[in-house]
Amino acid sequence: MLTFYFAPGSCALASLIALEESGLAYEPRRLNLANGDQRQPEYLAVNPKGRVPALVTDKGLITENVAILAYLAQIVPAAKLAPLDDPFAFAQMQAFNSYLSSTVHVNHSHKGRGYRWTDDAAAIEAMKAKVPQTMTESFALIEDGMLQGPWVMGDQYTVADGYLFTIAKWLPGDGVDRDQFAKVSAHYARMLERPAVKKALAVEAG
Amino acid sequence: MLTFYFAPGSCALASLIALEESGLAYEPRRLNLANGDQRQPEYLAVNPKGRVPALVTDKGLITENVAILAYLAQIVPAAKLAPLDDPFAFAQMQAFNSYLSSTVHVNHSHKGRGYRWTDDAAAIEAMKAKVPQTMTESFALIEDGMLQGPWVMGDQYTVADGYLFTIAKWLPGDGVDRDQFAKVSAHYARMLERPAVKKALAVEAG
Repeated sequence: MLTFYFAPGSCALASLIALEESGLAYEPRRLNLANGDQRQPEYLAVNPKGRVPALVTDKGLITENVAILAYLAQIVPAAKLAPLDDPFAFAQMQAFNSYLSSTVHVNHSHKGRGYRWTDDAAAIEAMKAKVPQTMTESFALIEDGMLQGPWVMGDQYTVADGYLFTIAKWLPGDGVDRDQFAKVSAHYARMLERPAVKKALAVEAG
Repeated sequence: MLTFYFAPGSCALASLIALEESGLAYEPRRLNLANGDQRQPEYLAVNPKGRVPALVTDKGLITENVAILAYLAQIVPAAKLAPLDDPFAFAQMQAFNSYLSSTVHVNHSHKGRGYRWTDDAAAIEAMKAKVPQTMTESFALIEDGMLQGPWVMGDQYTVADGYLFTIAKWLPGDGVDRDQFAKVSAHYARMLERPAVKKALAVEAG
């Protein structure tokens, strides 16, 4: 049995979508980040990082979307959620997910989580100002080359699609017009039609 | 044939070590980040992200340490650079690498690359002040649980070890005493003894 810790509005939606696509049974556990649930002793005992997502398996804990996404694809090969038999294509998918994790999500975090990197109130405010620019630049790279279409990896839907959808969902709140990116917008609309995405959004909404 | 683009002092050392551990032939290409080589049209034609590392294979480009490291482990299984036959252990390794990429490296980048997230000179200075604290907190998590010892994943050396070594190498420059972390320090010393690490450092030094 899998137990999945997530928080509404967070990047954990990417792994939640992959769980729904996989067809695996799991128990969802909701955290409220605004209430600080992620810093409570009960949760830190599960995940000392105090972040989501966290997937508890029979063998132990897996954190980080990049790791959870590839894991789910690997343990349910029949769901065809990654190019498992082609190391180069798998690496391309991993590079896409890693870019979202280490660059795009980080750009976004400077809007609401600037306190991670400075205690200076004026600096935290200053960081927010550049978020529309950094998110626009990242999505321009995605639009102009990384998103192969119709899915991230081309004809095969993969776990990278749910991750892109999750971060593209943040664009309006980041002050970025998603419609300026035709491929990203079409991908977003396509994702909203998938039953697993609808289910994941319903689980997230509670 | 593989062509590997790196820059001295950058996180590309992690993939450079993995290349040396793999035994694969590759052509190293050095960029000087201070000179802005990564923003020149010649390099942007190779890697539109304008970052290192970048590995050019016969099939195309792979970027991001997390992706390159797993790729090298997968295409040279005989080198035993990852737990390829155990999805849970592979996910643990991926989670470790992803944490280094999306959290620890990002913390470090607020010392010298604050301009990525703000154009405000005072804010860029303010970011630098917290780097010793954020790097210390990240390495405390690594020391207290993530680094199994003697290698990151326990008895088996993996590509995660070269990545940890690469970022631990930055600690003194980030104002953090590496010696306070006994397991990390012992790991660092152990890494310096490996022939592949010595070779990678020599390639980096030019």
